[in-house]
Amino acid sequence: MRATVFHGTGDVRVETVPDAGLRLPTDAVVRVVRAAVCGSDLWFYRGVAGWEPGWRLGHEFLGVVEEAGSEVRRVRKGDLVIAPFSFSDGSCEFCAQGLQTACVHGGFWGGAENDGGQAEAVRVPLADGTLVKLPEEIRGDRELLAKVLPLTDVLPTGHYAAVCARVGPGSTVAVIGDGAVGLCAVAAARRLGAERIISVGHHEGRLAIARRFGATDVVDSHGPDVAATILELTGGGAQVLEAVGTGASFELALQIARPGSTVGFVGVPFEASIPAMALFARSVRLAGGPAPARAFIPELLADVLAGAIDPSPVLDLHVALDGVPEAYRAMDERRAIKALVAVSD
Amino acid sequence: MRATVFHGTGDVRVETVPDAGLRLPTDAVVRVVRAAVCGSDLWFYRGVAGWEPGWRLGHEFLGVVEEAGSEVRRVRKGDLVIAPFSFSDGSCEFCAQGLQTACVHGGFWGGAENDGGQAEAVRVPLADGTLVKLPEEIRGDRELLAKVLPLTDVLPTGHYAAVCARVGPGSTVAVIGDGAVGLCAVAAARRLGAERIISVGHHEGRLAIARRFGATDVVDSHGPDVAATILELTGGGAQVLEAVGTGASFELALQIARPGSTVGFVGVPFEASIPAMALFARSVRLAGGPAPARAFIPELLADVLAGAIDPSPVLDLHVALDGVPEAYRAMDERRAIKALVAVSD
Repeated sequence: MRATVFHGTGDVRVETVPDAGLRLPTDAVVRVVRAAVCGSDLWFYRGVAGWEPGWRLGHEFLGVVEEAGSEVRRVRKGDLVIAPFSFSDGSCEFCAQGLQTACVHGGFWGGAENDGGQAEAVRVPLADGTLVKLPEEIRGDRELLAKVLPLTDVLPTGHYAAVCARVGPGSTVAVIGDGAVGLCAVAAARRLGAERIISVGHHEGRLAIARRFGATDVVDSHGPDVAATILELTGGGAQVLEAVGTGASFELALQIARPGSTVGFVGVPFEASIPAMALFARSVRLAGGPAPARAFIPELLADVLAGAIDPSPVLDLHVALDGVPEAYRAMDERRAIKALVAVSD
Repeated sequence: MRATVFHGTGDVRVETVPDAGLRLPTDAVVRVVRAAVCGSDLWFYRGVAGWEPGWRLGHEFLGVVEEAGSEVRRVRKGDLVIAPFSFSDGSCEFCAQGLQTACVHGGFWGGAENDGGQAEAVRVPLADGTLVKLPEEIRGDRELLAKVLPLTDVLPTGHYAAVCARVGPGSTVAVIGDGAVGLCAVAAARRLGAERIISVGHHEGRLAIARRFGATDVVDSHGPDVAATILELTGGGAQVLEAVGTGASFELALQIARPGSTVGFVGVPFEASIPAMALFARSVRLAGGPAPARAFIPELLADVLAGAIDPSPVLDLHVALDGVPEAYRAMDERRAIKALVAVSD
């Protein structure tokens, strides 16, 4: 089959690799229909994360079950299914708490050991705990497929930031970052009832999407006195959703968080360190990590299908599987927010 | 009057200063009966915090109201009262939430602007929002005064760590630090129903108090494989109360926190920085800061008076006001956990 493989900084290729196949009776094999490239994929693309040549790529996909192991009960051959960006057993202490990203038997797609989603097919470990069956109406509907695809990662990740920050009706929220996750965090905050949502970014096109998703204000992150502007707008601080993951974005988050509030942080912080005194002095809390997308897919899917929320504008570049390397380049150069990969129909 | 004044690293002196007096109609003047020296006082004593010569010292005291301003309603001359380690208006957004340490009009004792508690008397701003009246039975009872004095800071601070970490019935808890706050955190966790409490420290005498306060296990913080030992004891991590505030203690906290749990941190982290990836990767949360002691004094006082909790063993050195410099030395050299200062009766 064809799959995307990491070769080094700035070098990803679509190549022929051995076909995905069952290894354990709890596995399924999914033929990929749609995949995506994630902002967090840029970490290894840019050489920051320590990935090795030969590792498989892609952690966002939906597709059709091609084969299910003998112990798989909840999905069967032919089902249209979506996978969250991590797999999980669905039964351990952490899965029971809805924190599937801490599953004791779980893991992440791609790398040395697992298939990646930017490919024709994926072996899915722990299929019962991992996959969510999609309704038949989505099959073959290109528009609906694009609306549902962000449920693999960026929409539940934005939602998790909002949940961690305890956003609710009437909240005043600041979202740091205008990437796909930041934009989805705006939509999620709006969905949870936030009254005022300040999107902090610096790309006009992205901030336009933020407004469309529910931002009431936008603040230029490259402008002067960003923190002072937001403190002024909010009368002393907001509930902050951190969707970047750099030292600078954490610093801003701690400056603009309302005392006693919790910063929801979901940007992968490869290199950030947090001055503890800044947290301590303002009684600001931190909650975040890899979103347990599996826990949130059902409720978010229902709202996507009902038309209450549409994250598909973040997928502003559509490519075929062979176009994945160009999709990485476009995202790296910030010509695209996020790429949808149409692998099959 | 006599008061303790900072002169420089390792140099605190009890000197004659202008008498404490009312400045605003919301002030009271309290004649100090008991004060204490705090582990956090060692930060400036050791030259870490940027204190200036001439600043007043001490943020833990109880005493008798000597004079109350014309707008003070809740305490009157002659009342025995206790002060939390910060003053607060009792009416702002944050006080209403029980986060008096973020009060918009509040502040901390001592420094350039305010009287300190290691003195004969203190001007108390915002007396109605700050002071808590103590029952008459305490007056003149040296033993009870020692039991109640830790309510100014270390007991509510230990309690806040446990509240931040959501300790409750059946919890498995690890307390990092065997200072007065760490020991009080053990007692607070026990009071909240924790089933297993691991005290992490390295002073035998202190760890003995930890056991007396409810620790079921003690782990030598200078021993080999501290994190591995605790992960083994707890089957994968505990609810962590961080009562030290150094980079090393945060590192340990993040290693031994159970995924999805919240580290309650109350050690003043003057120099610590937290690797965000360590939080992110294990979905560990952080909540802490200066404890809103004012919010917790009533419930903790009731339990101290009922004999359900007795924090007085942490006050293992008793001095008169003139003995304050020796108390700092003893604490700095770890000859004493914490000093009680008997100022008057």
